[in-house]
Amino acid sequence: MPQSVVMGLDFGTESVRAILVDLKGNELATAVSRYAHGQILDKLPTSGQKLPPLFALQDPQDWIDSAATASRQAVQAARIKPAQVVGIGVDFTSCTMLPALSDGTPLCKLPALAKQPYAWPKLWKHHGAQDQADRITALARKRKEKWLARYGGTIGLEWFFPKICETLEKAPNIYKAAEVWVEGGDWYVWQLVGGDAAILPRSTCQAGYKAMWNSKTGYPSPQFFKALNPKMSDVLKKMPGKLLAPGEQAGELTAGMAKKMGLVPGVAVSAATIDAHAGVPGAGVAGAGTMVMVMGTSSCHMLNATKEKLVKGVAGIVDGGILPGLFGYETGQAAVGDAFDWLRRTLSQKDFKLMTQQAEALAPGSDGVLCIDWFNGCRTPLMDGELRGAFLGLSMGHTPGHMYRALLEASACGVRWIIELLENGGVPVNALVATGGLPHHNPFMVQVYADVIGKSILVHPSTQGPALGAAILGALAAGNKATGFTSAKAAIAAMSAKAARGGRVVKPIARNRKDYDQVYKRYRDTAAWISKQHD
Amino acid sequence: MPQSVVMGLDFGTESVRAILVDLKGNELATAVSRYAHGQILDKLPTSGQKLPPLFALQDPQDWIDSAATASRQAVQAARIKPAQVVGIGVDFTSCTMLPALSDGTPLCKLPALAKQPYAWPKLWKHHGAQDQADRITALARKRKEKWLARYGGTIGLEWFFPKICETLEKAPNIYKAAEVWVEGGDWYVWQLVGGDAAILPRSTCQAGYKAMWNSKTGYPSPQFFKALNPKMSDVLKKMPGKLLAPGEQAGELTAGMAKKMGLVPGVAVSAATIDAHAGVPGAGVAGAGTMVMVMGTSSCHMLNATKEKLVKGVAGIVDGGILPGLFGYETGQAAVGDAFDWLRRTLSQKDFKLMTQQAEALAPGSDGVLCIDWFNGCRTPLMDGELRGAFLGLSMGHTPGHMYRALLEASACGVRWIIELLENGGVPVNALVATGGLPHHNPFMVQVYADVIGKSILVHPSTQGPALGAAILGALAAGNKATGFTSAKAAIAAMSAKAARGGRVVKPIARNRKDYDQVYKRYRDTAAWISKQHD
Repeated sequence: MPQSVVMGLDFGTESVRAILVDLKGNELATAVSRYAHGQILDKLPTSGQKLPPLFALQDPQDWIDSAATASRQAVQAARIKPAQVVGIGVDFTSCTMLPALSDGTPLCKLPALAKQPYAWPKLWKHHGAQDQADRITALARKRKEKWLARYGGTIGLEWFFPKICETLEKAPNIYKAAEVWVEGGDWYVWQLVGGDAAILPRSTCQAGYKAMWNSKTGYPSPQFFKALNPKMSDVLKKMPGKLLAPGEQAGELTAGMAKKMGLVPGVAVSAATIDAHAGVPGAGVAGAGTMVMVMGTSSCHMLNATKEKLVKGVAGIVDGGILPGLFGYETGQAAVGDAFDWLRRTLSQKDFKLMTQQAEALAPGSDGVLCIDWFNGCRTPLMDGELRGAFLGLSMGHTPGHMYRALLEASACGVRWIIELLENGGVPVNALVATGGLPHHNPFMVQVYADVIGKSILVHPSTQGPALGAAILGALAAGNKATGFTSAKAAIAAMSAKAARGGRVVKPIARNRKDYDQVYKRYRDTAAWISKQHD
Repeated sequence: MPQSVVMGLDFGTESVRAILVDLKGNELATAVSRYAHGQILDKLPTSGQKLPPLFALQDPQDWIDSAATASRQAVQAARIKPAQVVGIGVDFTSCTMLPALSDGTPLCKLPALAKQPYAWPKLWKHHGAQDQADRITALARKRKEKWLARYGGTIGLEWFFPKICETLEKAPNIYKAAEVWVEGGDWYVWQLVGGDAAILPRSTCQAGYKAMWNSKTGYPSPQFFKALNPKMSDVLKKMPGKLLAPGEQAGELTAGMAKKMGLVPGVAVSAATIDAHAGVPGAGVAGAGTMVMVMGTSSCHMLNATKEKLVKGVAGIVDGGILPGLFGYETGQAAVGDAFDWLRRTLSQKDFKLMTQQAEALAPGSDGVLCIDWFNGCRTPLMDGELRGAFLGLSMGHTPGHMYRALLEASACGVRWIIELLENGGVPVNALVATGGLPHHNPFMVQVYADVIGKSILVHPSTQGPALGAAILGALAAGNKATGFTSAKAAIAAMSAKAARGGRVVKPIARNRKDYDQVYKRYRDTAAWISKQHD
């Protein structure tokens, strides 16, 4: 009998990755397919209309088409029979969300609405809802809403309800036409398994981290939304579905989707999870105290703890939000690889080669150049998307390499700040694991991180952290009968062990510590001044 | 009888310009010759030895050779007979200075010392003497030296005595070997006219602005120098010569130099002046209240007033330092064209075209990007060469054009600060004249300046401001018999009128004022914070 295989589908900002893994954790194949429209930042594909500055949209058909392509390519490359695939797990950027009809049709696919920007899915990095996020935070403080403390006291502008409220207030007709508001990952899983809106499979992970949902108290009350905007009092009626934890079975693959993807119908599909959160099991981390840094265009730092401590500035604390039985803490940095790439483009470099060479030749502190890495706002701990980045200490002897090294140092200072915040709040951080593409492509960055933070970092050798995590969730959804796994912990241990082999531990260089303590102090002082100016 | 002609020699940072003008101000020819060694910033030409970071040197033979080339080319291009040249004026960067023997031989030309960096002329922008400048300031405060107030209470690291003291302390053998310490401009004039060190023609302009000399009290006392460093008590003995005002005759051209330059011996040569200061008569400005902004790699803003007001932060106030009978106020910005070019290089742009296009398309305020233009320190009013520049308010939507526009706005804010400082100190600034190469090449910059400052700016049409001013000084040195001019004012009026024709007045755009008031407030707030951090 041919071995059973699971598929992880990892939806990123520019592309989707399909991975095929057997139940011993052997990676059989991987395939990446870029979205035809990528990020929609400048103009709407339908009308050519120029988008406002803070817009970031996607085309939902790209998710369907690119995942189908990647699935077919992976199956072919793995030389398996489609019928060997017994489970599918899905991780997705978040909060990427869209308005749809109750049959699942995205509003942007209706001819009457296709030329309206607000009918389109908003990508996670869409930043049009600052005003709404601020008002939600202020109202929650005023009403002393208990859920606010779980989000560090501040609701992010990238989250679910600010994005809905923005649409309601900027394009009321779209809000009215929306029968269903849904996370992109949940919408995609819904397309995989079919069924009507009443059983739309919504992930507790997305709901808990991005929509203020809690297992005991649910979403914020209709009264809260009414106080925010009277027209929003019906928003929960536009959120039908059933809540499922990642790894729970959302349903079985439909015949139509199976055909598109080169698979067989009936495969078990897991409820979705957020990409970063999938990185935790993907990195083989099943216990408390190990921070998994999922580093890509932005960074998400995930940590499990045995206790719930409401730490001010932490973006989300969700009971079982990452793994069952633990409190999941989510923190993050809004621009990491994205910022590196912006700097590269702005300095008109075709790649990172020269900048890296110059940067590596410098001493800690970049000859006095200091960067504040808020080029897309500050996520943890200030939760303010309108904060902006800076370079200070510049003189005419400085080169692109100085600016690049200063940016790496700033990014590392951002993580150090987060770790100090958690530890001072009573949440232990004992170990660091770096996953995602960036740590593999950029060993110099990892060394700077280790030096600035003063802790060793395990660079997880798989470049497929979230994708493998998604595959593991697919195995959980397939169930004990198909896989033999009796617990999530057992599945993680069995399926992640191979990927962890050859992990590289990067230790801090002792002689750099003192200089970086000074850089960190300057970073914090400057960050405090800049954020005070902004208030 | 063929008409009389005068030559102006304008020594810049990279090249020397020779201009030939008749006594009615008709420009007959101009020629530029680059220095073979340019700025010596990285390594010593003799030994290839890498220079320390803050070094900036020049080769004195380049001054002789390039001026000879430019002189010959100008005479040829003007189609005049060499004997028609009746006067030569010289303006020079300052404080560019060197140690020499009493026969004029620069120490760097002695085989025994040629491989020692401190034997070479230090260019004005050499920044190795911050410690010495700080100590001179502190000592002068402690000793309540009266001359300190004329320099805004702070002695600059680019000046004459800090540079000497740096050499004394870093390379005592060079200090010991030096028989003469001399400004580059004075040394060059000395080479033109010959004679021994006792009659070395030293300019009151350089002495007044860069060497704390005053017509009533002379240089600081030997006791002062002894207190600074006991070994420096003999420094004034190493400064032989006679002090002459610009326009006074230093002597007559020697046969040897005449041959090199394609001229005839015996031509009257004026005492030197500082390049920026030559720009004042060059721009036809003979009265009080008009600020002449001489803009190039750095900017020097020259203003005459009828009263002496000791304004804190103004780099130099010298009685007759610019023109006879008026108090000359010198202020400046340490990096202007130099900073623009550093940004261009750092952003890897081959020219300013794309940056300018992008910058012009933006609204005032550069979409939130704010620059502090201290990429080579802050001259007026903080007089601190160690202050550093910054860019703030950066996000990933920003382009090289945003950074460039922000830099132009910052440069303009720097001038506005200087003007407010003078006006608040009781020194009126009624009109602005922009000269130097930059305003001609960069009309967009001039508009930003006018808008930020809120005053009209006359862009003087001659690109030869200082060179024409030097030529006018050459006419003064030639004397009434050769030229018919009875006063400096008459010579300026007669010789500058032609060059002033077609001057362009750039008016502030009213609708931009409010936005720029906000930019200026942010600039001042940020500048205050950065300088406070540095203290």
